[in-house]
Amino acid sequence: MVCLIHGPNLNLLGFRDREVYGSKKLDEINDEIKKKAQDLGLEIEIFQSNSEGEIINLIQQAREKAKIIIINPGAYTHYSLAIRDALADVGLPVIEVHLSNIYSREDFRHFSCIAPVAWGQISGFGAHSYLLALEAAKAYLEGEVEI
Amino acid sequence: MVCLIHGPNLNLLGFRDREVYGSKKLDEINDEIKKKAQDLGLEIEIFQSNSEGEIINLIQQAREKAKIIIINPGAYTHYSLAIRDALADVGLPVIEVHLSNIYSREDFRHFSCIAPVAWGQISGFGAHSYLLALEAAKAYLEGEVEI
Amino acid sequence: MVCLIHGPNLNLLGFRDREVYGSKKLDEINDEIKKKAQDLGLEIEIFQSNSEGEIINLIQQAREKAKIIIINPGAYTHYSLAIRDALADVGLPVIEVHLSNIYSREDFRHFSCIAPVAWGQISGFGAHSYLLALEAAKAYLEGEVEI
Amino acid sequence: MVCLIHGPNLNLLGFRDREVYGSKKLDEINDEIKKKAQDLGLEIEIFQSNSEGEIINLIQQAREKAKIIIINPGAYTHYSLAIRDALADVGLPVIEVHLSNIYSREDFRHFSCIAPVAWGQISGFGAHSYLLALEAAKAYLEGEVEI
Amino acid sequence: MVCLIHGPNLNLLGFRDREVYGSKKLDEINDEIKKKAQDLGLEIEIFQSNSEGEIINLIQQAREKAKIIIINPGAYTHYSLAIRDALADVGLPVIEVHLSNIYSREDFRHFSCIAPVAWGQISGFGAHSYLLALEAAKAYLEGEVEI
Amino acid sequence: MVCLIHGPNLNLLGFRDREVYGSKKLDEINDEIKKKAQDLGLEIEIFQSNSEGEIINLIQQAREKAKIIIINPGAYTHYSLAIRDALADVGLPVIEVHLSNIYSREDFRHFSCIAPVAWGQISGFGAHSYLLALEAAKAYLEGEVEI
Amino acid sequence: MVCLIHGPNLNLLGFRDREVYGSKKLDEINDEIKKKAQDLGLEIEIFQSNSEGEIINLIQQAREKAKIIIINPGAYTHYSLAIRDALADVGLPVIEVHLSNIYSREDFRHFSCIAPVAWGQISGFGAHSYLLALEAAKAYLEGEVEI
Amino acid sequence: MVCLIHGPNLNLLGFRDREVYGSKKLDEINDEIKKKAQDLGLEIEIFQSNSEGEIINLIQQAREKAKIIIINPGAYTHYSLAIRDALADVGLPVIEVHLSNIYSREDFRHFSCIAPVAWGQISGFGAHSYLLALEAAKAYLEGEVEI
Amino acid sequence: MVCLIHGPNLNLLGFRDREVYGSKKLDEINDEIKKKAQDLGLEIEIFQSNSEGEIINLIQQAREKAKIIIINPGAYTHYSLAIRDALADVGLPVIEVHLSNIYSREDFRHFSCIAPVAWGQISGFGAHSYLLALEAAKAYLEGEVEI
Amino acid sequence: MVCLIHGPNLNLLGFRDREVYGSKKLDEINDEIKKKAQDLGLEIEIFQSNSEGEIINLIQQAREKAKIIIINPGAYTHYSLAIRDALADVGLPVIEVHLSNIYSREDFRHFSCIAPVAWGQISGFGAHSYLLALEAAKAYLEGEVEI
Amino acid sequence: MVCLIHGPNLNLLGFRDREVYGSKKLDEINDEIKKKAQDLGLEIEIFQSNSEGEIINLIQQAREKAKIIIINPGAYTHYSLAIRDALADVGLPVIEVHLSNIYSREDFRHFSCIAPVAWGQISGFGAHSYLLALEAAKAYLEGEVEI
Amino acid sequence: MVCLIHGPNLNLLGFRDREVYGSKKLDEINDEIKKKAQDLGLEIEIFQSNSEGEIINLIQQAREKAKIIIINPGAYTHYSLAIRDALADVGLPVIEVHLSNIYSREDFRHFSCIAPVAWGQISGFGAHSYLLALEAAKAYLEGEVEI
Repeated sequence: MVCLIHGPNLNLLGFRDREVYGSKKLDEINDEIKKKAQDLGLEIEIFQSNSEGEIINLIQQAREKAKIIIINPGAYTHYSLAIRDALADVGLPVIEVHLSNIYSREDFRHFSCIAPVAWGQISGFGAHSYLLALEAAKAYLEGEVEI
Repeated sequence: MVCLIHGPNLNLLGFRDREVYGSKKLDEINDEIKKKAQDLGLEIEIFQSNSEGEIINLIQQAREKAKIIIINPGAYTHYSLAIRDALADVGLPVIEVHLSNIYSREDFRHFSCIAPVAWGQISGFGAHSYLLALEAAKAYLEGEVEI
Repeated sequence: MVCLIHGPNLNLLGFRDREVYGSKKLDEINDEIKKKAQDLGLEIEIFQSNSEGEIINLIQQAREKAKIIIINPGAYTHYSLAIRDALADVGLPVIEVHLSNIYSREDFRHFSCIAPVAWGQISGFGAHSYLLALEAAKAYLEGEVEI
Repeated sequence: MVCLIHGPNLNLLGFRDREVYGSKKLDEINDEIKKKAQDLGLEIEIFQSNSEGEIINLIQQAREKAKIIIINPGAYTHYSLAIRDALADVGLPVIEVHLSNIYSREDFRHFSCIAPVAWGQISGFGAHSYLLALEAAKAYLEGEVEI
Repeated sequence: MVCLIHGPNLNLLGFRDREVYGSKKLDEINDEIKKKAQDLGLEIEIFQSNSEGEIINLIQQAREKAKIIIINPGAYTHYSLAIRDALADVGLPVIEVHLSNIYSREDFRHFSCIAPVAWGQISGFGAHSYLLALEAAKAYLEGEVEI
Repeated sequence: MVCLIHGPNLNLLGFRDREVYGSKKLDEINDEIKKKAQDLGLEIEIFQSNSEGEIINLIQQAREKAKIIIINPGAYTHYSLAIRDALADVGLPVIEVHLSNIYSREDFRHFSCIAPVAWGQISGFGAHSYLLALEAAKAYLEGEVEI
Repeated sequence: MVCLIHGPNLNLLGFRDREVYGSKKLDEINDEIKKKAQDLGLEIEIFQSNSEGEIINLIQQAREKAKIIIINPGAYTHYSLAIRDALADVGLPVIEVHLSNIYSREDFRHFSCIAPVAWGQISGFGAHSYLLALEAAKAYLEGEVEI
Repeated sequence: MVCLIHGPNLNLLGFRDREVYGSKKLDEINDEIKKKAQDLGLEIEIFQSNSEGEIINLIQQAREKAKIIIINPGAYTHYSLAIRDALADVGLPVIEVHLSNIYSREDFRHFSCIAPVAWGQISGFGAHSYLLALEAAKAYLEGEVEI
Repeated sequence: MVCLIHGPNLNLLGFRDREVYGSKKLDEINDEIKKKAQDLGLEIEIFQSNSEGEIINLIQQAREKAKIIIINPGAYTHYSLAIRDALADVGLPVIEVHLSNIYSREDFRHFSCIAPVAWGQISGFGAHSYLLALEAAKAYLEGEVEI
Repeated sequence: MVCLIHGPNLNLLGFRDREVYGSKKLDEINDEIKKKAQDLGLEIEIFQSNSEGEIINLIQQAREKAKIIIINPGAYTHYSLAIRDALADVGLPVIEVHLSNIYSREDFRHFSCIAPVAWGQISGFGAHSYLLALEAAKAYLEGEVEI
Repeated sequence: MVCLIHGPNLNLLGFRDREVYGSKKLDEINDEIKKKAQDLGLEIEIFQSNSEGEIINLIQQAREKAKIIIINPGAYTHYSLAIRDALADVGLPVIEVHLSNIYSREDFRHFSCIAPVAWGQISGFGAHSYLLALEAAKAYLEGEVEI
Repeated sequence: MVCLIHGPNLNLLGFRDREVYGSKKLDEINDEIKKKAQDLGLEIEIFQSNSEGEIINLIQQAREKAKIIIINPGAYTHYSLAIRDALADVGLPVIEVHLSNIYSREDFRHFSCIAPVAWGQISGFGAHSYLLALEAAKAYLEGEVEI
């Protein structure tokens, strides 16, 4: 099972700054994700939370249920060492996803404390970033790539 | 047409530190890339160079021939402002690709001066990173995503 | 409606270091705030939370109910990029308030990651800072100042 | 008596970048300030100078005439340690005022060497910042707040 | 009463990287702690939470119930100024505990924003760190050491 | 045998700033330490020196005589890489002890170049820090904890 | 009209360190400048002041009289944000001139806070720098270059 | 003879970001340069290269043929210590030229490692910068200025 | 003749923070200075100004009248590169004097941009610092020391 | 075989700043190197290039032909991560050589990005540095030292 | 009694770089010091040591014998926190002396870790610095200045 | 005569971390050094000390006896400005030697405060580094290289 976690403020997608994040609502994006997962033959569970503690709980619960984690940590990307530890502790491969290209925005968004414990990072392709992450997840789950 | 550029020392793949870069030779990876491109219905031209100046020339030549650029700038990622300028000047979407997760390696590899002028970045999935880039390129070329 | 949010540890006012924060309890301050709002003819709702996630939820809920946000983010001022994003995303004018003069205290309190997305900042006048914020809110709501 | 000092280039208000500073001329703003002072029952003297030394002289002269100082130090905010010393030396409460939100502008404007010796800071509300400062001054002069 | 708080991801002890944290589960450690407390004649209450806000609540509740706080703030050690404020506000002696030697690990773990408001810090002795903290707590409660 | 080394200026204890270091003289503290060692059934040798070179000699001599080193490196904590190397070279477990909480004092005292080569660090409990170190030493010598 | 302003200590030219600034006196240089202006058919007014406030006044006065400003801000180059603001506020093109190559001297001379608001900078050609600036001014005034 | 070298990506002038670099093609600019040289009675040779090594070769060849070098090092300005060494080694006066004002652009463009070994720098006057450089070259070649 | 210059806010001596600066008024200190000069057989002129530009003028005027300069640059110590240049340009020995020990106060007072161009610095002895400076001046003027 | 590579601008030896680099021409130095190699019974091939890309090619070609690399990377020492990667990738021992003592020159020459992947570094002995490198190479090739 | 301590390498005075330190030998300087002390009616003991530990011992011994310490800590000025602690611990007034102006030399000599615990600092007057220190000592011992 | 000084902890060679420093004991290395010296016809005296002050004494004594100094300053390399001054003061050529490649180890070992006053540095060749230093010493003593 793929565990996909949307971090803080992603529930506002479609309302947030549309030039940066696009005009799709989170529900629409989740529908695209689910459809892609189905096409790729992947089981998926999707979560969203604004709370750092809750995201840690979700990650810890994935330890027993999921085989891989896809996470867009939102602004927590830049300082949540507690989420980083949670991701490192559960021992699953992690794909870090960002809608926007975090390296072409404000300075403070250039640093990810999550990246060093991730398998890989996909950043900048809008909602399509999630679909690429699913492709990567599939390649891993089918043994096409090693970590 | 997709223009794909491998930067310095990537011609040594398979000989380089295999724990970091995997054991496939560049030719094998190029074959996988070509096959994937064919599957996705994409025309592709692949280049490799160890020379910064030559890479700039390749990028400038892509301005008239290509619709999108996929580039793994190797170590030039971290300091070649001249390649950055070339990429910005040609006005094509750029996908930055890295085999290894540059954020879990030495400090000097955490910074990309290319990223701010790229559409997006894919980092850490080994040779599979290129295949994901092709998926993103296709989505762009078919108008599924906007930039 | 004016949405006023007190951040972490402000529920301890009156118990906290009195030299810095004064000796009034939060309830007393809230009473002063409500009275001032009434005098100015402003509707107001007041919240307090120690939880970053909960504060983000409160801000998001303000998007539909409130016309302006007054927030004292407490210690989250200095690192909660997630609260910053929430404030930027809801698209309402934000007045950042501090009881103490954050610029005459420890170095780490000199930096506010909230300030760049605020309309303005009022810092250092004790509980009176909130009353000044209400004056500013009124000027905005009555069209006396533009943003 | 309230001593209000406008720093360098504020005599150009209305001519300066209007998106940042608004379109009112300094005279119009001074009229609003005087009217507000009158409404609040406060005596006020207003000064403007482009010269650091002259501003220090004005502050020193306030020591005997005024009970509180309101100052918008303009660009001197960011480096005039001599003005800072003058303000600290005269021993009066100081309210630091900025028309624009200095924290959402260029990096060098984020730092105020004046703030650590001020009672409080009001930043970002346009010309209305001065009126809020008068409210704060009144609260102090009438003993409603302690410093 | 001694209030002992385990921070984020400590509920994964025994599952987390065992080379760093050892192989004991949190329950086993808590049993050792309770036994040691009993031996020393100390009443103790033990909590664990992954949520910053909840930890602040726990600290605030200790203000009336406890005489001393022992806390292992986990990754929050390095950035939670809100927990720091809570600890400073409740006015109890605080013993900061770490299982691993945080100074021989990644750079970002070398800095504790909690330490400046703690009575003392014990770091690196594995689960035994908690037992040493109990010894210190006892010395304090019996008046053998002054703070 | 436990080798305990007091670094520079600790021979002035009781004369040094008593607010920071307490009013006990070094001899009194050494008596407490010896008594505690006796209670715990530990052999101990205690040294004090103001000389970096002499402290290195003491550490090197411990290589053959002692099973564990307890050291309060005083101000050398912050810059003596030569002491650090000596401690690393002798291959014994090292417990770093500080009377005061070095993290709540001047900035330059926040950094220990000794800590990365220590087993653990105990800081802030006054002379009681040494007694806690003895407890830790005993746990190690009796095999209750692993390193 | 061209407004040319010499900043602090330039009245000492010919007396100052001649290896750096050459042996011509300011009067001689001004004569060369006037002659060149005449040759180019440019009206010019030349000022010198050691006072930051006076230089701001001169710049503000140029707003109505001059079409372009040539300024050698001397040591104020490196810290006078107030002069920078004045230059930005008057809305005229600014040519920043330096006699010496500021980039081959002490570190603190490498940074100009004036440069970002200038049209261009000419540095290092001795008194000839002013003549080049006049050439540039002429090109602008005759519409040969756009800004 | 004057040796003029255009660095990387300057062959794209007219295609590059026109707001920054203007709309003239490199050929048009070179024609203006040649005409100006002719007017001033200067012999000139003009080169362009995207390759750092080739630019070093061009500089070394100038040692015997040229009396002065005019160079726009493009993005190499900011990091090519090898070009810097080449310029220093040939022992000719160097005029560093930039089309755009490098000090009003991205931070990384504010630093020139070339400037410390140049005679002077002319930055920001568009293609006219080259013409000013020729004026300076003439003044040098005719002995009107000393270096 | 000895030229002695008091910088900004020193005219407030006796009113300024007396713990730092002592309780003597500037006039009293000047009387002590004059008496000491007389005892040593030195001619002296004493100035005070709050204005940077005026201080530069005073320094420049000393070029012809004085043989040595004693200056307490007050807060200008820390940023007035223009005063530094003036002092360097006049070519006289300079003695930098501070009443307080600037190295035991706020961080920003630890740096003097004046010191590198001074002969020597005397800091921390209260008004007595000036008298020591006179002793040094005398030693220089009588050829007892070389510079 | 020993592969010896001279980096950029070393072909100018004897013309470059002679105080720093000595007065011998590269050919003379190469003759000394060849003679020493002969004396030591070592085969050697010597290259020089100003081009980063070409140097990378030379290093890659050494992979099959040479047993050890001696390289003076010239100014590339300080920023060519691509050369560093090439050296690391070919898997041969590398001796980094500098004519001048890079640690007693400009700050930017103090850092070598090559050194971390070298076996050892010899810096400062003029052309004799190469001869020492040959001695080290011989010791390695004859198994007298291990790496 | 005045305790005067010369730090490391000062025994080489007269042999050390004479441009910086002058040509007098330490013995000659000590004779001048003793004569001046006699003139001022001060008892004095003079020491020199190259050893940090020995200097600490000398300082500690002064605690009972001396009323004031004059120290030139040589290179230990810049890093010996242990000497700093010793000086702070003995509780006597300390005058820090330097022969050369440490602020006009290498960057690493600009910082004194001793200065914050000194009464005052005298730097740059050659051997005369010691004589000025004696004057200051006398003023203190005769109660002419307060600390 | 060649004076060779081994710094702190080098007497533990063979016991220290063998992966870094090799397995030879200091005596064995000294034997190799003496034999090499004999082969080269060089007189040599060898010292080892853990004490900074003693090393300074040894260096000062070399001033009269030796013609060149070879020193491995161990950990003092990174902070002993007093040893640096001693080496600079004695006026002999200095060869700095390191067994390990200090640039491929911890960050704090990358900086040598000794290097700027050395003739040259040899780092990374194990005990063979000393033998290369002897070769360099011989070349100097026989006038084959100039300094």
